[in-house]
Amino acid sequence: MNKRGFASDNNSGVHPEIMKAIIEANNGHTIAYGDDIYTDKAKAKLYEHFGNDIDIYFVFIGTAANVLGLNAATRSWNAVICAETAHINEDECGAPQKFNGFKLLTVETPDGKLTVESVQKHIKGIGFEHHSQPKVISITQVTELGTIYSVDEIKTLADFAHQNNMYLHMDGARIANAAVSLKKKFKEFTKDAGVDILSFGGTKNGMMYGEAILFLSKKLGEDFKYVRKQGMQLASKMRYISAQFERYLSDNLWYKNAEHSNKMAQLLAEKIQEIPQIQITQKVEANGVFAIVPSREMIEDLKHEYFFYDWDEMRNEVRWMTSFDTQKEDIIKFVDLIKMKLKK
Amino acid sequence: MNKRGFASDNNSGVHPEIMKAIIEANNGHTIAYGDDIYTDKAKAKLYEHFGNDIDIYFVFIGTAANVLGLNAATRSWNAVICAETAHINEDECGAPQKFNGFKLLTVETPDGKLTVESVQKHIKGIGFEHHSQPKVISITQVTELGTIYSVDEIKTLADFAHQNNMYLHMDGARIANAAVSLKKKFKEFTKDAGVDILSFGGTKNGMMYGEAILFLSKKLGEDFKYVRKQGMQLASKMRYISAQFERYLSDNLWYKNAEHSNKMAQLLAEKIQEIPQIQITQKVEANGVFAIVPSREMIEDLKHEYFFYDWDEMRNEVRWMTSFDTQKEDIIKFVDLIKMKLKK
Amino acid sequence: MNKRGFASDNNSGVHPEIMKAIIEANNGHTIAYGDDIYTDKAKAKLYEHFGNDIDIYFVFIGTAANVLGLNAATRSWNAVICAETAHINEDECGAPQKFNGFKLLTVETPDGKLTVESVQKHIKGIGFEHHSQPKVISITQVTELGTIYSVDEIKTLADFAHQNNMYLHMDGARIANAAVSLKKKFKEFTKDAGVDILSFGGTKNGMMYGEAILFLSKKLGEDFKYVRKQGMQLASKMRYISAQFERYLSDNLWYKNAEHSNKMAQLLAEKIQEIPQIQITQKVEANGVFAIVPSREMIEDLKHEYFFYDWDEMRNEVRWMTSFDTQKEDIIKFVDLIKMKLKK
Amino acid sequence: MNKRGFASDNNSGVHPEIMKAIIEANNGHTIAYGDDIYTDKAKAKLYEHFGNDIDIYFVFIGTAANVLGLNAATRSWNAVICAETAHINEDECGAPQKFNGFKLLTVETPDGKLTVESVQKHIKGIGFEHHSQPKVISITQVTELGTIYSVDEIKTLADFAHQNNMYLHMDGARIANAAVSLKKKFKEFTKDAGVDILSFGGTKNGMMYGEAILFLSKKLGEDFKYVRKQGMQLASKMRYISAQFERYLSDNLWYKNAEHSNKMAQLLAEKIQEIPQIQITQKVEANGVFAIVPSREMIEDLKHEYFFYDWDEMRNEVRWMTSFDTQKEDIIKFVDLIKMKLKK
Repeated sequence: MNKRGFASDNNSGVHPEIMKAIIEANNGHTIAYGDDIYTDKAKAKLYEHFGNDIDIYFVFIGTAANVLGLNAATRSWNAVICAETAHINEDECGAPQKFNGFKLLTVETPDGKLTVESVQKHIKGIGFEHHSQPKVISITQVTELGTIYSVDEIKTLADFAHQNNMYLHMDGARIANAAVSLKKKFKEFTKDAGVDILSFGGTKNGMMYGEAILFLSKKLGEDFKYVRKQGMQLASKMRYISAQFERYLSDNLWYKNAEHSNKMAQLLAEKIQEIPQIQITQKVEANGVFAIVPSREMIEDLKHEYFFYDWDEMRNEVRWMTSFDTQKEDIIKFVDLIKMKLKK
Repeated sequence: MNKRGFASDNNSGVHPEIMKAIIEANNGHTIAYGDDIYTDKAKAKLYEHFGNDIDIYFVFIGTAANVLGLNAATRSWNAVICAETAHINEDECGAPQKFNGFKLLTVETPDGKLTVESVQKHIKGIGFEHHSQPKVISITQVTELGTIYSVDEIKTLADFAHQNNMYLHMDGARIANAAVSLKKKFKEFTKDAGVDILSFGGTKNGMMYGEAILFLSKKLGEDFKYVRKQGMQLASKMRYISAQFERYLSDNLWYKNAEHSNKMAQLLAEKIQEIPQIQITQKVEANGVFAIVPSREMIEDLKHEYFFYDWDEMRNEVRWMTSFDTQKEDIIKFVDLIKMKLKK
Repeated sequence: MNKRGFASDNNSGVHPEIMKAIIEANNGHTIAYGDDIYTDKAKAKLYEHFGNDIDIYFVFIGTAANVLGLNAATRSWNAVICAETAHINEDECGAPQKFNGFKLLTVETPDGKLTVESVQKHIKGIGFEHHSQPKVISITQVTELGTIYSVDEIKTLADFAHQNNMYLHMDGARIANAAVSLKKKFKEFTKDAGVDILSFGGTKNGMMYGEAILFLSKKLGEDFKYVRKQGMQLASKMRYISAQFERYLSDNLWYKNAEHSNKMAQLLAEKIQEIPQIQITQKVEANGVFAIVPSREMIEDLKHEYFFYDWDEMRNEVRWMTSFDTQKEDIIKFVDLIKMKLKK
Repeated sequence: MNKRGFASDNNSGVHPEIMKAIIEANNGHTIAYGDDIYTDKAKAKLYEHFGNDIDIYFVFIGTAANVLGLNAATRSWNAVICAETAHINEDECGAPQKFNGFKLLTVETPDGKLTVESVQKHIKGIGFEHHSQPKVISITQVTELGTIYSVDEIKTLADFAHQNNMYLHMDGARIANAAVSLKKKFKEFTKDAGVDILSFGGTKNGMMYGEAILFLSKKLGEDFKYVRKQGMQLASKMRYISAQFERYLSDNLWYKNAEHSNKMAQLLAEKIQEIPQIQITQKVEANGVFAIVPSREMIEDLKHEYFFYDWDEMRNEVRWMTSFDTQKEDIIKFVDLIKMKLKK
């Protein structure tokens, strides 16, 4: 039997409706590499959400969506500004530097969110050839710390980027959770707010694999098909990615999944707040709860029964992620276990 | 309705048994990134075929299997020798050069197969720093021209490679078709014959996505997990790749699929040989038939009803691929159509 | 004492007038990295030759001039077409692929020269994402085989390149020898003939170090200062490169040096033609003589007394280069030695 | 006339003795690319200083020495730890990332110096494939802030690096100034202290161009000749670099130059300390003086008459560098000018 837990929204499986769409796509022959009706339909769904004036490319994973999307906006002597906690900085094993040759300029943040003030320090050496030239500000929505940028915060960063001849990139691995939390349409806090490049994720919200790179500033997508192929991200049997996206974006499936997962995080947070020995460290705005637990021993004890990860080992901070398939019961049992351990 | 055809084994769908395995893997939570029982089982199957003394990594696609597998054996100042028709040279948009920084040294061949004689001309400038140093010979089995290396031919190339302090890499995108045709076990014409690195494909033979890199010389796999991650090929929900491989390698499914597809190619070749106006240009040893058709017009006419690709447009040479799901009826109808067109 | 020879125009030293210019530049403090009067003056000389509408960057060596110059015109998914014998293909240890990520498409030639006909075969797969997209044709003037493109031949290639949305690059490591041989001004067979990017060499013709990248299509030089710096080719004490170029391009020093070196090659060729056992294999149009010598033993014997290189070891073909400092006496003694050896 | 100043030790010219050595090397023909007696002699000098058990490669510039030296010790999925102020981080336009594909992990420091404590935070995620694996600690001696690591400090960092399966790299662009200041032989604070890779600079101390990469852990130099060539740093007329190094390392020329330049910095610091309105911000241990000047206006005023650079524009901090050719008079006049300006 598979152990359940709060390790990652990647540990959950595939939503039954997505699986059904995959099965339905398994029908006869289809031109490989994306020139097929499944891909056309998936793109049509994305056009509905973001408008027609964008360019869309499917890839296998989020790391690739970020790395290749950034490639389109940069040359190797550029720099990309991001939070120190950003996935592109912390969790991609140097893939952005390797593939793009550029430099990441990181910013320490309390909550995973960039601000114009914190970004400002890297806007220097402009025109000075010894210095990598900043070209992109990259934000994550939902951030790696479970927090969310407001529409205004995004607009402010986008304006700042554009004023400085830069682009705004959004790593939207959990963008559905953000949309639910913000009560906004995708377009309102991306394209309309000035985001130029978007990694649009689905895998963490019920899909099997597949991620979309959306060039909201369409011209950035010019010639991108070569980048995707050379970046080893062109799927031969593309229809199985496309069919997932089409279903994911139909009947509000993406919304329902994210809404559920956000609610479960709220529930977990509420329950945890009843426990005085545990301190929640970040606002719970999406589907992650960050908390400091009294002791290392307790963390290890809990891990025997539930999957989850340390966030900051030094201070016993852990990360609990909920997912589209998290059950109320999972949370209640988990919190009960914590309480029981604390009693001992 | 989807048009059928002979374009590519990538145009066919997913074998129902593979699909079933995927569905069965969709059960609860599983640790992401490959530390799961599905992956363990898939690896166990590969160990059965190749022995335990190998190192195994799953990636998304064949291009990545080739590019990253070669990365493990080279530094950027090396060169890799391959046929001019090799997938790594012709069909990967420069991904090997981009990711590995090395050089491909190509050999013109009549049939897609390297020989020691033809490779020899590139063994020069050894120790001369102005010259990229050859480090790998890369062969494709089945070749891009539908031909097959015998065990002895592989051994001869492997010995030559090793004598020259080089490795032998095999792009096995269609390795199942080769095993069926050779009537040999995988191990006999790979590890036992001296192959060091193997791209073990499944997608062209009934899988949905996923490819395995096998380091048959195990030490080459040391530290490879970082290469895979930085190469943007580490699947989060790995179980869905692994479940496919486990099923593919059980109950001889891989064999049955390839056997069928090879037989269909034989049938197609036999039928075509009855047509004097069409000339088959390569030995039909696996699941591809290469043929020269009387006219451009005829090619275009046929393409209206069936998917397939030109091979050499200049001389009206086409490529017809069969697949695990090709039906006798497909072939008979196709050949009838050709005959009818020729009568006009 | 240093052995003289015909190995390479790189084996000769620095012309005394160039050395004098270096010494004169060694005067007090000067802003580093090229913002100095020496650099301004050197550029002014190049503007005189090529017109003002170009962009100029000094680097250390010819390999860098080629690699970085090509960088400005390509993205990693492009390809560059060149002769198989081209320096960028044979003598740069894969630097073009490593730094630019692109692919070289090579053409076999009898004389080191590309033609539209021979280039044509690589103009395929345009718009097809599996295929590296050709973007530059690169020629070498003087070629690596000592031959020279006429103005018309260059124009024809340039027109072809431009019609195909490509650029024409010229590796001009020995451009001075070409100008002398063609009896043309630099501009006539470069900018006016349609060359977009030029590696303008001086080291092989009496300079100590330093090469210029000229963007004759000026827009290609946009942002190039970052490429040069990131390419590790920005000299701190730039004035010592610039002072050389200024002197090299004054009082026809470049012309006199190249003229002398060409004449010496003509003399050598004439003398060699008197020896029936030796066959000259390429037209002697600049400062190189290629010849087949009767035996390996004889080649080794000659090498004991003079520096020179094998060209094609298999057929005892050697390369003899003359230089600005080759003396008539060097040639007479060398030919006498050959004759003496042949008598034995 | 050239304006003098305190901008950079790169703004000074070439020491007359070095120039003389260059002139003397300009004698007849010499095998290109380093297989010559000048290079042998220069290496012999370095062996005298560092012992025979090292590997030596000459390149053109310091950026290349750093980037290529680090290449030898890393794969692209590694990380290099350095101070945020390090040249490799701040002044090389991303060349380390571009050429090596790796990641820099930076540490904020008050004085440009790493400590085990400050480095420690980056030793995490070891064995975790999502995380670039730290492989090198890189220090600069003299630091970019004019401070110096003691022998013990270097030993401590080296021990820590080696215990963690890492290497210690030293950017020794100003290593001569450090040796003078420490009153130590080169070997004592490099090889004997555990440094594995050393960029040994000369250009900032009286040479024209040329830098040496010393693999003090000799095995790291294996195959490095290919890295240098592919890195576009193999000089054809190598003798002119080698002759400089030979002379530089003879008769203590390197020592005299550095000693003078350090003394001039001391003198400048002493004089500046007499001015209460100016605050020296770093220990003056080599040839740089960092100071906060009362106003932006004053900085601009001074720059009209002397070259020098801002360090931290926000707080009016400037950097004044002395050089082998700085004269006492330069300093006295400069300080007098400051005093005069302050009186107004």
